[in-house]
Amino acid sequence: MTVTSTATNKPMIQIALDQTDLASAIQVANNVESFVDVIEIGTILAFAEGMNAVQTLRKNHPDHILVCDMKTTDGGAILAKMAFEAGSDWITVSAAAHIATIAACKKVADQFNGEIQIEIYGNWTMDDAQAWVDLGITQAIYHRSRDAELAGVGWTEEDLVKMRKLSELGLELSITGGIVPEDLYLFEGIKAKTFIAGRALAGEQGKQTAEALRAQIDRYWV
Amino acid sequence: MTVTSTATNKPMIQIALDQTDLASAIQVANNVESFVDVIEIGTILAFAEGMNAVQTLRKNHPDHILVCDMKTTDGGAILAKMAFEAGSDWITVSAAAHIATIAACKKVADQFNGEIQIEIYGNWTMDDAQAWVDLGITQAIYHRSRDAELAGVGWTEEDLVKMRKLSELGLELSITGGIVPEDLYLFEGIKAKTFIAGRALAGEQGKQTAEALRAQIDRYWV
Repeated sequence: MTVTSTATNKPMIQIALDQTDLASAIQVANNVESFVDVIEIGTILAFAEGMNAVQTLRKNHPDHILVCDMKTTDGGAILAKMAFEAGSDWITVSAAAHIATIAACKKVADQFNGEIQIEIYGNWTMDDAQAWVDLGITQAIYHRSRDAELAGVGWTEEDLVKMRKLSELGLELSITGGIVPEDLYLFEGIKAKTFIAGRALAGEQGKQTAEALRAQIDRYWV
Repeated sequence: MTVTSTATNKPMIQIALDQTDLASAIQVANNVESFVDVIEIGTILAFAEGMNAVQTLRKNHPDHILVCDMKTTDGGAILAKMAFEAGSDWITVSAAAHIATIAACKKVADQFNGEIQIEIYGNWTMDDAQAWVDLGITQAIYHRSRDAELAGVGWTEEDLVKMRKLSELGLELSITGGIVPEDLYLFEGIKAKTFIAGRALAGEQGKQTAEALRAQIDRYWV
């Protein structure tokens, strides 16, 4: 983990591992560990390989923040316990989950000194967001969906207004969905926890991409 | 699979396997296979053991309908492909998913002669439901959340009104959340695809529970 990033409130860089087999994910994680702060076991990888993926990456990367992207929607206590026991520091919980599910996840997270990230999908409202904050949740994930992105839906002013409001409520945001260094200025003034990318960091130009992201982070966040 | 159930339009009985290890799930599936029609690899089991759970249960139960409860929220095409390749007949997709994600899952399902079940969570609307139907989706899952159930939230008239409307749109519903034989009369007139239970079917009284459910099904559905 990059000490500089965590010692300040600067956004961190997160790799999303969405490989469909653990061997490939291990290789990508090894390639990127020197220039990312947070390693995400993506939903695809977690469903492909189960909690063994979390355990293995925890063992391989003891000093990184590890997040399991379960998009938990129900059965919160059991899923959260599984992921934290396997070595996750953070888990994601769907904004569409019943508030009782979110509360159940938060309770388990507290037992493990872990954190919950609300993953924003569906027809959520700012009242929902206030309810998350009232539970003590401090993080949320804001993104264009992978499929919306493929359908050509970009970052809109509406996205940015919502992100600023969430930030004002006190939520630190992890931002994802086709993140490129040139776009980071859009998010200035928002409490950004991490910027998440997958292929952009995993590919041959991954290190350069990470450096370009950090340069923009240094420019817009103190 | 019970031929009687599939030859008519009578609701089927579905076991949800939510064990946190595959060995326990295998044992439960073996115990219940003679009196359930549909075997569900629950979200908990799928995250615990990965697609190996689907592959194993497919091998053990070649004639049952197999559903993988992914509650897919993003990355639809890859997740759907993984689950259908592993042997699922149906997969679940979250109502909170972007319509492009649902469309991506449907497209993959069609390639495998599989089916998509929309799992209803969050602030969905009847317009959303119409959009699912417009994509050719024929199934949805309606339930009290596990956590809402624990919080003491029961079946309400509001639930039943929504279920009847979804049924009228053409969606067959799988109904879950503390299903007991005595409650089945509540759902009369609704196109029920399956009634889903976990512990109630897995326990010592499982066979009796299944028989009691079938007696009520025979009473209220022809």
